[in-house]
Amino acid sequence: MTLRVAVAGASGYAGGEVLRVLLGHPEVEIGAVTAGANAGQRLGALQPHLLPLADRVLQDTDAEALAGHDVVFLALPHGQSAAVAAGLGEETLVIDCGADFRLRDAADWERFYGTPHAGRWPYGLPELPGARAELVGAKRIAVPGCFPTAVSLALFPAYAAALVEPEAVVVAATGTSGAGKTPKPHLLGSEVMGSVSPYGVGGTHRHTPEMAQNLTEVAGEPVTVSFTPHLVPMSRGILATCSAKARPGVTAAGLREAYTKALRDEPFVHLLPEGQWPATAAVQGANTALIQVALDPAAGRVVVVAAIDNLTKGTAGGAVQSMNVALGLPETLGLPVTGLAP
Amino acid sequence: MTLRVAVAGASGYAGGEVLRVLLGHPEVEIGAVTAGANAGQRLGALQPHLLPLADRVLQDTDAEALAGHDVVFLALPHGQSAAVAAGLGEETLVIDCGADFRLRDAADWERFYGTPHAGRWPYGLPELPGARAELVGAKRIAVPGCFPTAVSLALFPAYAAALVEPEAVVVAATGTSGAGKTPKPHLLGSEVMGSVSPYGVGGTHRHTPEMAQNLTEVAGEPVTVSFTPHLVPMSRGILATCSAKARPGVTAAGLREAYTKALRDEPFVHLLPEGQWPATAAVQGANTALIQVALDPAAGRVVVVAAIDNLTKGTAGGAVQSMNVALGLPETLGLPVTGLAP
Amino acid sequence: MTLRVAVAGASGYAGGEVLRVLLGHPEVEIGAVTAGANAGQRLGALQPHLLPLADRVLQDTDAEALAGHDVVFLALPHGQSAAVAAGLGEETLVIDCGADFRLRDAADWERFYGTPHAGRWPYGLPELPGARAELVGAKRIAVPGCFPTAVSLALFPAYAAALVEPEAVVVAATGTSGAGKTPKPHLLGSEVMGSVSPYGVGGTHRHTPEMAQNLTEVAGEPVTVSFTPHLVPMSRGILATCSAKARPGVTAAGLREAYTKALRDEPFVHLLPEGQWPATAAVQGANTALIQVALDPAAGRVVVVAAIDNLTKGTAGGAVQSMNVALGLPETLGLPVTGLAP
Amino acid sequence: MTLRVAVAGASGYAGGEVLRVLLGHPEVEIGAVTAGANAGQRLGALQPHLLPLADRVLQDTDAEALAGHDVVFLALPHGQSAAVAAGLGEETLVIDCGADFRLRDAADWERFYGTPHAGRWPYGLPELPGARAELVGAKRIAVPGCFPTAVSLALFPAYAAALVEPEAVVVAATGTSGAGKTPKPHLLGSEVMGSVSPYGVGGTHRHTPEMAQNLTEVAGEPVTVSFTPHLVPMSRGILATCSAKARPGVTAAGLREAYTKALRDEPFVHLLPEGQWPATAAVQGANTALIQVALDPAAGRVVVVAAIDNLTKGTAGGAVQSMNVALGLPETLGLPVTGLAP
Repeated sequence: MTLRVAVAGASGYAGGEVLRVLLGHPEVEIGAVTAGANAGQRLGALQPHLLPLADRVLQDTDAEALAGHDVVFLALPHGQSAAVAAGLGEETLVIDCGADFRLRDAADWERFYGTPHAGRWPYGLPELPGARAELVGAKRIAVPGCFPTAVSLALFPAYAAALVEPEAVVVAATGTSGAGKTPKPHLLGSEVMGSVSPYGVGGTHRHTPEMAQNLTEVAGEPVTVSFTPHLVPMSRGILATCSAKARPGVTAAGLREAYTKALRDEPFVHLLPEGQWPATAAVQGANTALIQVALDPAAGRVVVVAAIDNLTKGTAGGAVQSMNVALGLPETLGLPVTGLAP
Repeated sequence: MTLRVAVAGASGYAGGEVLRVLLGHPEVEIGAVTAGANAGQRLGALQPHLLPLADRVLQDTDAEALAGHDVVFLALPHGQSAAVAAGLGEETLVIDCGADFRLRDAADWERFYGTPHAGRWPYGLPELPGARAELVGAKRIAVPGCFPTAVSLALFPAYAAALVEPEAVVVAATGTSGAGKTPKPHLLGSEVMGSVSPYGVGGTHRHTPEMAQNLTEVAGEPVTVSFTPHLVPMSRGILATCSAKARPGVTAAGLREAYTKALRDEPFVHLLPEGQWPATAAVQGANTALIQVALDPAAGRVVVVAAIDNLTKGTAGGAVQSMNVALGLPETLGLPVTGLAP
Repeated sequence: MTLRVAVAGASGYAGGEVLRVLLGHPEVEIGAVTAGANAGQRLGALQPHLLPLADRVLQDTDAEALAGHDVVFLALPHGQSAAVAAGLGEETLVIDCGADFRLRDAADWERFYGTPHAGRWPYGLPELPGARAELVGAKRIAVPGCFPTAVSLALFPAYAAALVEPEAVVVAATGTSGAGKTPKPHLLGSEVMGSVSPYGVGGTHRHTPEMAQNLTEVAGEPVTVSFTPHLVPMSRGILATCSAKARPGVTAAGLREAYTKALRDEPFVHLLPEGQWPATAAVQGANTALIQVALDPAAGRVVVVAAIDNLTKGTAGGAVQSMNVALGLPETLGLPVTGLAP
Repeated sequence: MTLRVAVAGASGYAGGEVLRVLLGHPEVEIGAVTAGANAGQRLGALQPHLLPLADRVLQDTDAEALAGHDVVFLALPHGQSAAVAAGLGEETLVIDCGADFRLRDAADWERFYGTPHAGRWPYGLPELPGARAELVGAKRIAVPGCFPTAVSLALFPAYAAALVEPEAVVVAATGTSGAGKTPKPHLLGSEVMGSVSPYGVGGTHRHTPEMAQNLTEVAGEPVTVSFTPHLVPMSRGILATCSAKARPGVTAAGLREAYTKALRDEPFVHLLPEGQWPATAAVQGANTALIQVALDPAAGRVVVVAAIDNLTKGTAGGAVQSMNVALGLPETLGLPVTGLAP
């Protein structure tokens, strides 16, 4: 099976990473690559690392350019996916890397995004309980946000086993590519190098309700998330440090056992050996999540750390993994598991 | 008054920063600069940024070299300060940048450091309730750890005003200089650039009991701290993201008022205008702490973020500030408040 | 003497650094701070490191705001200085950090900048032969470009002593702050971290004729410069690696002697001890240039390396140094010589 | 054909990269992985990015461990390869990533390395004129140094076409991984972040004679190289900026034509479209060299810039490319050409 695949938003970081991952997929032939303001340019001028595609010319993102593909990846600014998807036939697998179809709750959507709710598509985090089954055969997939990917993978085993209280505290660091390629003063190299700063503090980041939604579904009771993301001086990577109060009777051994059981069959999510903690460099460019867990007896909390590459497992790799699941291909087909380090 | 000041451990990062700050102090004359293995070398070969001292030669760290000074700063590996201080007269002001005399509780010390407890000296964080008074006239001062400086400044107003529950969750990022200048594989540039990683997870970092001690004293009841530090790709700076459950009835306005009141007379600790969050670059090289606070109503938590330079306010600047207080000089004398950015 | 000083362009990197340096100058009182599009904002929102000026509000850059000051620093986009300066009285010392008045040759200006030549002002690099005398009492000063500062300091001793051929090859690395604060895609943190790239290759960078002008004046014969600048992943700093063919008979000892002689009385330019090479970190935030020189006998070339901070000695520090000279103040007054490292 | 391949020195950066590249090679089965002081450890503890090999245990680097493989890669400290290679049969393809067998001239070797010359093996830079032919069927291969790879690829077309004078000036920037994984003070993150510094100035770097050897062979006359390498704040990548005086009559068009012709059939070396300059990020993790060339008419010099990843095309990728050539496999088999960016 050779799939003809289009990528909309190919000049941005997410779209570029989708292309990078697809270049390594043995069943994919890359068709249209489209953009907004950058349409008409050589891809090589904007994404010089995608050497095999350097001479491709970006087309406009419209139904005509995207027609005739088996799979279309959307890597568009939030709010644009619904209209583009509407122009694509039902037989086309549409995978949206944006936020538009992630949230179940319309009120959540409206509070955080300020526009009407577009609906919800099958959620592209196969590792979550129940998610894989929903993805098989799906023709529309919502790729999770990068932070929710890391945080959900870190905490779902604890909530699935009812080991922690339903109040999670998440502090995460992200590389600057998560903020996209549109130039803004606070994203200048001069500003980010040598500096760490928080944003979206106090529960205002748009990924907060998505995390709460995922953990609530796993826990079977409402889970709140206190979420504080930080911009750190690196291009790629998310490190999410998550904690919650341990339920009475939880032991370090029981905790480890629950994580081992929950993750042992996952090809992309690895519980590290005891004592080894994740670093983002180890998963750079890989569709891998590294996880470690500890019990802090003095504070009475379970602490879980997850490292992913925000662009790979956090976006493009996760998207291609979901494509594989949806189409009945081997889930790991064409996906990098080895990171680029140092 | 011209003070003759010696610095022991002048080839390391903490000692170098003490010298850098002292070079800007109008009442200080720099006397002996000493080192361990680096004794005998030109300071300019090891600390080329300290241009006015480039031709100084490092002496051995011993009582003879350190004798005859009004003030002696110790920037030595943990466990070495007690012996050196014992060789200095009681009339000498000894300011220890190491951990040896920070903890009140001998059991805490022994659990975290594994050696006999040396005692406790007046604690060099003048902003803490009661600390300034204890420092005036003191002849022995323990400089706080860099993380406890940031975290105590961030949280003391909330605990002093009883606004939060006594279980704090602290996640902090530090630049690599906090780990010192002794070469270790995980501190290589190749390892730290492009990567974020946690360490001391699960309550095992040595600064944990120091934070708990400070907040417990302020709160008047036992406060636990779940502390997770992270190494991020920058040389200097600490960003501490601290949270705790809001007590019933706490409002955003009440919170802001408490912080405004607690910090308004502090020359080095600044509550930022609403909506502006601290970045470490803004305090680079300055004896400044920038603070912001928010209430997350959905999660029911107070979130406080503090940014300091780990070497300046977190070590050397705080040490010189305490020297000023101890000697009755203006507290701000010779201390930088302007950061180096970008 | 207390000078009332205004800074036009105070929201940018050069203007911010002028303010940072001026905050440490004992004879300066900071008056108007002005901006273009950022007028009306609190300085603290844009330059949070300039804590003592945080509550200042940026005024529009016009003659009214800038009137009534003893000294006005212009840190404006190229081409705007002439008009602003025309509105300032002749008794006002106007120091232009832009390029407008650096080049002697109108044809050079027009070829590289594409606009009519505005003229030439006394050149603010006091270390160049003859420059100091021209600056004393001057009321208009053109601050050199950052690269020409580094390169001229590196090579003038060799050309003054006729030790090298008049064809210089200069390859330089600069931090991103040299490119300013206006957001552009290639200056995003995501693009610059982890990457080195050249620009202005083949003699097209605007600083090329300025270097050639300076070295030609020193050499007394036309000197060509092959100049290739590079953007590297750091915020501040220039490292210029300069070489030229050694003239017959030149020895390592003779070379060192020429440099020692040329630089020994300079307060801000230091020839390092033999075997020690400059690093930009050592001059971060300082008005210092570090120089080292070597003879490569196999290649027959003299190699000189200079490190400066592009914003300090390369712009704002050099500007204040020239102000001191012009006004008859001690040349080093209020200027930092100690760098911020690590 | 499935090749059984061993890697000696697998805990270092070069050895780790050889493994990373081999993991993507369809005809390779990874056999023994060996180390010096790190023998006995899990590979996952030292190279956590090599997830598929995490549970491998490092063996001692000795003849026994390395026996029975079709190919053995040596990534050892300089001077150790000859002894190890001597213990391997003549039927084994031995590919040495160290310097031991690169130089033809024993006097050069002794002057720069201070030990007896071990000899010269076929040189693993297939793009150099004549090199491919020598590699076919070879059983011993010397992988070029990382700088000589970049510089030889940049300049060989100009020397092959006799367009430039035989005095090259090369200034290069390298990421810190080129300096290896052994902890040294100047390689600490605190030292390299925010700083650029030169080393090996004045023709003393060991890669200098290797560059001169390659260019001399291509030019057919002695070529001297003035080489100045710099350490810059990134983990990976080399950017080499090379120039030489243009021979009379050389035009921009002629220059471009020569480069187009020389490189158009090379699968891994790409001349960029006019006006686009190489950045190291674009080749991160790829076995790709990006080249651009310009004529500076005012300075009369040809300027060529090459970007490679020092660990991939500069070491491990080049090594595997040479393995493919030696064994008659397709030269590009299993080698990444797409970079990881941003």
